[in-house]
Amino acid sequence: MTPSPKYITGDKAAINEFIDKFDTFLFDCDGVLWSGDHVFEGVPETIRMLKAKGKRTVFVTNNSTKSRQDYLKKLSNLHIPCEKEDVFGSSYSAAVYISRILKQPPGKNKVFVIGEAGVEAELAAEGIPCIGGTDEKFRRDVAPEDFQGLADGSLLDPEVGVVLCGLDFHINYLKLSTALHYLRKGAVFLATNTDSTLPMHHSFFMGAGSCMIPLEYASGQKPLELGKPSQAMMDAVEGKFQLDRSRTCMIGDRLNTDIKFGIEGKLGGTLHVLTGVHKKEDWDKEDAVAVPAYYADQLSDLGLVA
Amino acid sequence: MTPSPKYITGDKAAINEFIDKFDTFLFDCDGVLWSGDHVFEGVPETIRMLKAKGKRTVFVTNNSTKSRQDYLKKLSNLHIPCEKEDVFGSSYSAAVYISRILKQPPGKNKVFVIGEAGVEAELAAEGIPCIGGTDEKFRRDVAPEDFQGLADGSLLDPEVGVVLCGLDFHINYLKLSTALHYLRKGAVFLATNTDSTLPMHHSFFMGAGSCMIPLEYASGQKPLELGKPSQAMMDAVEGKFQLDRSRTCMIGDRLNTDIKFGIEGKLGGTLHVLTGVHKKEDWDKEDAVAVPAYYADQLSDLGLVA
Repeated sequence: MTPSPKYITGDKAAINEFIDKFDTFLFDCDGVLWSGDHVFEGVPETIRMLKAKGKRTVFVTNNSTKSRQDYLKKLSNLHIPCEKEDVFGSSYSAAVYISRILKQPPGKNKVFVIGEAGVEAELAAEGIPCIGGTDEKFRRDVAPEDFQGLADGSLLDPEVGVVLCGLDFHINYLKLSTALHYLRKGAVFLATNTDSTLPMHHSFFMGAGSCMIPLEYASGQKPLELGKPSQAMMDAVEGKFQLDRSRTCMIGDRLNTDIKFGIEGKLGGTLHVLTGVHKKEDWDKEDAVAVPAYYADQLSDLGLVA
Repeated sequence: MTPSPKYITGDKAAINEFIDKFDTFLFDCDGVLWSGDHVFEGVPETIRMLKAKGKRTVFVTNNSTKSRQDYLKKLSNLHIPCEKEDVFGSSYSAAVYISRILKQPPGKNKVFVIGEAGVEAELAAEGIPCIGGTDEKFRRDVAPEDFQGLADGSLLDPEVGVVLCGLDFHINYLKLSTALHYLRKGAVFLATNTDSTLPMHHSFFMGAGSCMIPLEYASGQKPLELGKPSQAMMDAVEGKFQLDRSRTCMIGDRLNTDIKFGIEGKLGGTLHVLTGVHKKEDWDKEDAVAVPAYYADQLSDLGLVA
C-alpha cells in the first residue's frame, strides 16, 4: 500500500525539512503557478525564496502552443524569476527527440504539424523542416479536390516522415485528414503530450490529447508521447540539467501527468498542490493513477519558512 | 466456434437458396452499393431483381451528413430503385430516438449539433429545435472571449439538453469546446454513429466517430450510439417496417457495424460483400468482431439467379 501523502501547509518544520531534501524543483506551470493569465498570490516570492536558498527551479510544461521564448516572456511578465534555460516544454522535448534520437533519413525528415507556433519555433530551433501548423493553407474548409488529392497522394509531401500533434486551436477536418494520410503512408506518430483537457477560466477546454485522439481512433495507431508523464521527457530534462534525481522534486496539480512523471522518473519526491485539476479525493480512491509524497493547498505555502 | 461463412459467388444453387430464405434485405450503402459517387456495376439491376421477386429492400446507412431526402436523390441518380420510406439513416434514427424515446422536458429540449445538414433536416422533421450544426456562427476560429463566455456560461443556451454528434466536415475547436461545456452541464450525449473512418476514393478519411472521440476523451463520458451496430437502430427499423427478423438479412462491408448489427439483432442472416472496408482475413482471425453467415465478392453476384 502506498503511504498517504504528507500535508505540509502551515507546518513550518515539515516545510523546512521538505525544502532541505531537494536541490532541484521541477514545476508544472498551469494550475501551479497560474491559471490562464492570473498568477497565484505569493508565487513569484516563493520561487525567489527557493532561488535565494540556492535551489534550481525548472519549469516543465506540457503546453505545446508556446515556445521556450514565449514561456520566458510569460514568466517574466508575471514577475517569476526565470531564464530561458529554465524552461522545458513539450514542444521543445519533441523537437529534441526528433533531431537527436529519431534522426529520420534525408528526404524523409519533414514534420507535418498539428499545433500552434510554439511547436514550429522549437522545430525550427533544432533545424527540422515542417509543414502544416499555422500555415493558412491548412486553415480552411476541406474541399472536394482535397479528398481526391489526399487519396491519390498528389497533395502529400513525399518528404514528410513524422506527424507531430500538439494543441491546435485551429484543428479542422483538412488537417486531421492530411495527418491521417501521412500516418497511413508510414509516418512516425508523435504527440507533444496527451492531456485531454486545457484548464482555463476555472473550466476545461480541449487539450492537446483531444486534438490528437481522432488520429489515434482513425488510424488505430498510438503516438509516442513526448510530454509528461513520458519518461522520454524526464530523460531529456536529466540530460540537460545533469540533475541528481534523488535530490529532485516534481511539483504539480495533475496526478496522471505531473505526479506520475515524478514517480516513474524515480525522483526523490513529488508535491501536489490543490490549485489545479486534481483534488485530494483523486488520490484517496483505490485506483488512483499516482499518489504524491507531499501535498499543500498552494505553492506559496512553501513561503512559511524560517 | 462460429462456423465459417458460406461463399455464394458463382454458385447458382446457393444464391437461389440464399434469396429464398429472406423477405427483407437491409443494405448498407457505402462500400456495398457504391464507393463515393461511383456505383458498383450491376447494383441497380440486382436491387430491381430482388424487388421483382417481391423482396423488401431497405437502405440502412450510418452516413449522418445526408437526410433521407438526400439519400433518395442519390439512390435515384444512381438508378437504384427506392422510395423515401426505404431509407433509414443514423440521423433519422437519432431524431426518432430524441423525439419519441428520450423525450426531454420542456425548456431542455434543444439539441446542440456537431454535424452537417442531414442531421438538422431529420431533427427538424421530428420537430426538435437545434443549434450549432451548419450555423456559420460556429464555423470560425475560437476567440479569447469564447473561452470566457463558455467558462462562465454566458455563451451557453440554457435550453440545450442534448449534444448530438455526427460527421462534421467543419469540425473545429469552438464547436468541440461548446459541446464539451454542454456535456459538463449535464446534457445527454448521443452519437449518430461511431465509425472511425469514412471510405472515399479508395482511401479513408475522418468518420463521425473521429469527430466525436475528442468529446469522449475530454469529458470522460461515452455517447449513446444510434447508428449501426446499435440495437436502438435495429429496434427503430423493426418498428417502422414491422419486419420478421428471422426472414431478414443484413448486407454490408463492415464487420464491426453491419455484420455485428445483424448478428446482435438476431436476424435470419448476414451477407458480407468484399467491395468495402473489411476483407476475408478480418473475420478469419481469432478475435474477429463478428463473422457473417454468407459472403460474396460483390453485391451483383446475387444476379446469377434462375
